Parts: sequence; C-alpha cells; structure tokens
Amino acid sequence: MNMLVDGEWRTGAYEYTDESGEFDRQESSFRDWLDGGVAAAGEEPVSSTFTPESGRYHLYICRACPWAHRAAMVRRLRGLTDEISVSLVQPERYDQGWEFSDDHPDPLHGYDYLREVYTDADPGYTGRVTVPALWDKQTETIVNNESSEIMRMLDTAFDGNDASLYPEDRREAIDEIVDAIYGPINNGVYRAGFAGTQGAYEDAVDDLFDALDHWDAVLADQRYLAGDGERLTLADVAMFATLIRFDHVYHTHFKCNRRAIHEYPNLWGYTKDLYQTRGIAETVNMDHITRHYYGSHADINPKRIVATGPDIDFDESHGRDGLSGEPPLPQ
Amino acid sequence: MNMLVDGEWRTGAYEYTDESGEFDRQESSFRDWLDGGVAAAGEEPVSSTFTPESGRYHLYICRACPWAHRAAMVRRLRGLTDEISVSLVQPERYDQGWEFSDDHPDPLHGYDYLREVYTDADPGYTGRVTVPALWDKQTETIVNNESSEIMRMLDTAFDGNDASLYPEDRREAIDEIVDAIYGPINNGVYRAGFAGTQGAYEDAVDDLFDALDHWDAVLADQRYLAGDGERLTLADVAMFATLIRFDHVYHTHFKCNRRAIHEYPNLWGYTKDLYQTRGIAETVNMDHITRHYYGSHADINPKRIVATGPDIDFDESHGRDGLSGEPPLPQ
Repeated sequence: MNMLVDGEWRTGAYEYTDESGEFDRQESSFRDWLDGGVAAAGEEPVSSTFTPESGRYHLYICRACPWAHRAAMVRRLRGLTDEISVSLVQPERYDQGWEFSDDHPDPLHGYDYLREVYTDADPGYTGRVTVPALWDKQTETIVNNESSEIMRMLDTAFDGNDASLYPEDRREAIDEIVDAIYGPINNGVYRAGFAGTQGAYEDAVDDLFDALDHWDAVLADQRYLAGDGERLTLADVAMFATLIRFDHVYHTHFKCNRRAIHEYPNLWGYTKDLYQTRGIAETVNMDHITRHYYGSHADINPKRIVATGPDIDFDESHGRDGLSGEPPLPQ
Repeated sequence: MNMLVDGEWRTGAYEYTDESGEFDRQESSFRDWLDGGVAAAGEEPVSSTFTPESGRYHLYICRACPWAHRAAMVRRLRGLTDEISVSLVQPERYDQGWEFSDDHPDPLHGYDYLREVYTDADPGYTGRVTVPALWDKQTETIVNNESSEIMRMLDTAFDGNDASLYPEDRREAIDEIVDAIYGPINNGVYRAGFAGTQGAYEDAVDDLFDALDHWDAVLADQRYLAGDGERLTLADVAMFATLIRFDHVYHTHFKCNRRAIHEYPNLWGYTKDLYQTRGIAETVNMDHITRHYYGSHADINPKRIVATGPDIDFDESHGRDGLSGEPPLPQ
C-alpha cells in the first residue's frame, strides 16, 4: 500500500507479501455509498446523503489499472460520461505513489499527487492510495475507493441509459461470478506476479489457469458470462479488465505464461468481442497499461524495460456473432 | 564476465552493457585447436599438438547454456560419447560463477568452482569463466572455450560416425548461416534480455523477430537450414540451441514476447523435428534451463521466481516428414 512511514509516502507495500510469500491485497478504506445504489443481489437500495446528481461526482482513475477500468467501463457503457467527470493519473507509479503530471493534471485541486486528494478527504489518512476513487465535489470527500462497489453503485444509483449492467433478475448470477473470478483471476495475476516464494507463485498460477480453463469452456456456448449469457453485465466488465491486460503484461511481467489469452479458443474471441463493443476500446490505453506495470514494479523489473509484445490484434474478427445475445450500443 | 576484482570473483559482468545500454558479449580466451580440425569453409585442417585421442578430452558444460549445448549436441550426434567425457556444472550461477555441487561434481579435479579449472589451465587467468570448456587431460589445460570453434573441431578432428554435421560441400553455406543467426538470434535474445535502455531492447527485439520471420519462411520448403536443406548440420545445431530455450525462457525472462516459437508454423515444427531426432532430447534439460536463467539473473529477476510455462509438448507430431531429407540416426 501507499502509506505514510516516518513522514514519507511509501509505495513498496502495494506489493506486500506475507511471511509465506503470498501477496496479500489490503482492503480499501472509503466505503460510503451513493443514494439509491444497490450493493448486492437481493438487497434494497442504499439510503445515503450522497445523492446522484449530474456533475457532482468525479472519478480519479488510471488507464493502466484494472480496478479503475471497471469504473471507467461502467461510466461509458451506462452513458454516464456527461454525468460523472473523470481524470487520469500518470501511468508510472514511483515512490510517491500515483502522481498527476502536466499531461494528466488534477482538474479539481491542482495537486501533484493523488495522496493529496486522499488527505484532503481525510487529513489523518495513512492507508492505501488507489484508483478508482469516486470524489464528491459538493462535500469534498472520497465517497468510495472500492471498485467492486463503485461499479455497482454507478450502475444502479444513476439512471443512465437502458442497458443496465446489473439487472435485477441476474444480480445473483453476476455476484457469484464477480466473486468467483476475483481470487483466481483478477487478483490471481497479482498473486503470481508479486509472489515472494516459488510455492506461492506456483499455487497462484495453478489457480489462475484452472479458472481460465473453466471460463473458456463456459464461453464456448454463451456470448457473455452471467445467466443465459445473452447480455453483457458487470461480470463481463470484471473479467475483461483482466483479460485485456493479460497477454501484454500478466503473461510476461507477472510470469503467467502457461498460456496466452490469444491461445484460448473462446476467451480470445470473447476478449475481442468485448473490445469491439461500442465504447469499450476508448477505455483501453495499452501504452498506459504497459508503461505502468513494467515501469512501476522495480522489485520484479528493476531495469523498467517495457516489453513490446505480443503482436496480436484486438480488432480482428471475434467470431462470436453466432451465439445468442447482442452487444449493448451506448451512444 | 566472471573476473577477479579485488580478490573476489565477480559474475555481474556476464551481463555487461556498454554506455549505450547495449549488451556486449566479451570474447572467449582459450583458442587452441585439435589437430586435424577444420576451422572454416575452404580452410585446411589445423596442425596442432592436441591430437584427437579417445579418452583424452573432457567437456565441461552446463545443460542450461545454449553455447555449451552446441558442443553437447555435436558430441552426441557424431557418436563421440565414448571418446569425450563430459560433466555438468550446477545450473544456478551466483557470485562465484559456475559452481560444481554434490549433484554435479568436478570429476577430474574435485574443484568447487569452474574458475578453478580456468586458473589451473592459466594461473594468471582473470577473464570470463564460461562453458563449454574443452579440457585436455594429458597436458592439463583448456584447449578451447569458444563454442563455434569447439563444435567445428569436434565434428572434423574426430572420426566419429558417418553423419558429419560439417560436410565439406556445405561448409560455406553452414558458416554463412551460423554467422547470420549469431547476432540477431543466438546472441540477440541476450541483447534483448540484458538491455539497459528501452532503445537497446527494442533494437534487439526488432532484429530478433525480423530474423525469426526470415528463417521461418526459409523452413517452409526445407527440412534443415543449410544448402538443399536435406541434411542436419552445425547450422541447425546453432539454431536449435536457441529455439529450444525460447518459449520457456527468452520469451518471458528476456521479454522476447512478440511471438513464441510455438506460434511460428515452420520454426515450431522444425524445433520439434530436431528435438525428436535420436540423441538430441537427451541433451535437453528444461529444469536446468529454467532454473539457470530465472535463478541467476538477479538484475532482471530479483525474486528468482522460475516461470513454469508454457504448456507445450516437444514430442507432439512435427509434421515435417513430407520435406526432403532424413534425420541422422546416431547410435
């Protein structure tokens, strides 16, 4: 985590491994909720003073980060780009944590570092400084910095377009999949990459590829992950954020090299299908993705050389039109 | 290089990069020659006091090293296993350079480190301590430690079997290919992996994949590399030593991830064809290969985690039987 140690902000513990060499992701700290948002299948909308209003909220994201990518995708797919403003941090993360730069300034405060946004929200804050962070311009605080909650609250608290990514009749299936893929896949690539021991690494890649094999088989017969598979949902958002980074980063930088996504018959077509869904490609910045990972983890890539492969094309034919279901077409 | 600095043997300079960030491989030091060996196309056999005699010479190799692999392949393919003894060093290389171990002792001297063999040959030696090293038991010295010379002298100085890997009528073609693939391919993967700057890395991978693309096209119509392509030669030995390591090591550890060899239509079949040629598989030890690279280069892999992929099978059908030419069948 990025935390205050002896008066200096340290990022090393982003890659915190416990005594057994296992990567241990720390919990997010800001867990308030937008009014009317639904947190999980079967739950009532949350009541809160954070009213969804156009222009009131701002998303701090990094195009490199898969957790931030979830929020960016929901914002775009639900037609909330005019409702919620967004800004990027610099992709490389050094000793001071996520930074703003001339190319990627802080449009609200003009800060140099994202940690200043966090201490603005909570002057005594010493925890992790992460993206996405949902900022409330009215009360000047961070509402929430937990991506699995932000993606649900953006989808359900705002009206958006008609293409809900968390429709009531599929929430249970979506929640199950989002939970099921978090450990072995979304966080699994980090467990592999930040493992401090050979055993922890091998456990992580075993879990990861068992899970990828499973979902590749599921996707042989259905276009999307949840329920009948005919509709793109938050389960796909969560899966895509990992798959789109896999071959360029996780495969090589995190040593998840048993198999590339472009070698999976169904996961590869699925990844291209989502990439080609209107609105999604514009949330992907492969330059930021590769610069961030290869450039920010000196403990596993000291020379910060950015690998330039593989030579694959997310725009080539995905071959999944024959499966039931249509992609959403947000304007 | 492994050299004596202030009384300590240092291996860091194995990965020596110059001021521009380019990896700069240092020259080998022992360059004597076996009597009767032929050094290059069009040259007469060399005259020397190092007479080829059964049992007189010993090869120090590491199963991980592609340069040592050349010598090991020639020894096996030319039927010289009873003529020339061989021993292995420990695959991991630390501060003291190549080591012997209980599993891999020095059978001639009982030394702990290969550098002791070098200083036995030359008490004032302070240069690189590398494999392969061809040791003469009679005069107790290193004859040669340059793999491109060792492979030629083993093939031509000893009688061996009938399957010459450096036949007179193809020597020119073989020399041209061995030279042509050294820079971009055999040494090119090291240029990529040890590059100290992004520019040096990108130059290396551009050269590497241009060359791989070229040779993949050549191998569409011929079974082996040199001349009419009907016969396995030293050109194939030199190429194979890199290709067999590529997907497990160079692709991930050295970031040569534009494409894997198993994604090339002809290079992949060619690699499997050679692997399945009698005698060659026994010269390949993928455990030593991966342990060496991932375990020895702390400057690019500080945690020394050994990547476990990819999931490929060198024993699967190679599909190259339809091309002209037969593999050698050494007993």
